Amino acid sequence: MSAEDVRAVIEEWARAVRNHDLAGVLAHHTEDVRIFDVPAPTQARGLAAYRTAWELFFEYSSEDLTFDLTELEVEAGDSVAFGHALLMLMGAPIRLTVGLRKVEDAWLISHEHHSVPGEAA
Amino acid sequence: MSAEDVRAVIEEWARAVRNHDLAGVLAHHTEDVRIFDVPAPTQARGLAAYRTAWELFFEYSSEDLTFDLTELEVEAGDSVAFGHALLMLMGAPIRLTVGLRKVEDAWLISHEHHSVPGEAA
Repeated sequence: MSAEDVRAVIEEWARAVRNHDLAGVLAHHTEDVRIFDVPAPTQARGLAAYRTAWELFFEYSSEDLTFDLTELEVEAGDSVAFGHALLMLMGAPIRLTVGLRKVEDAWLISHEHHSVPGEAA
Repeated sequence: MSAEDVRAVIEEWARAVRNHDLAGVLAHHTEDVRIFDVPAPTQARGLAAYRTAWELFFEYSSEDLTFDLTELEVEAGDSVAFGHALLMLMGAPIRLTVGLRKVEDAWLISHEHHSVPGEAA
């Protein structure tokens, strides 16, 4: 089942974050991943930039980091899929959207969008 | 071409926003759309909530609203697709991700994520 496989990729990624496992965090991404991260800049591209963001994150994270994936929903087709969820980071909700493409039978994340809502207008 | 069709849906949506065309903005969404919007709340669900958000937006928008879609990239499979872009709203960049599913030969948006980056850590 494609949707189950996509869900597993996203859950493994979140588990790798909790475990401070940088290789695991990077294991399911495309080289050209486009990143809309919580802090500035507006966007970044590529695995090298993605790695740098997580190195910085882990540098400032405690050993008992919580990073719980909740309300994950996935839609998967033959070769393209996306998922959206809330990530509870030390109690604060972060919105997560990921886009994936199938590459040689493996689902890889080619787009990742994290955000926190702004103040209501 | 699926990717071209998906791109057209997203571009029509942005054009409808520019034209203050509420029916056009709502025309290509699923009833169960999950919304991660710029202002709070963290998330919302359904076309009714989506409509309310745009009614509020238009209430506070000037007639000469700029809402330009730039750097749009789309990945489309047989029945699922996603796209990501920057929206220039009166000169400020908003990150946009949309997820779509094919329903009776039409591409409909079932997930929409808008955000602005926070301050750098």
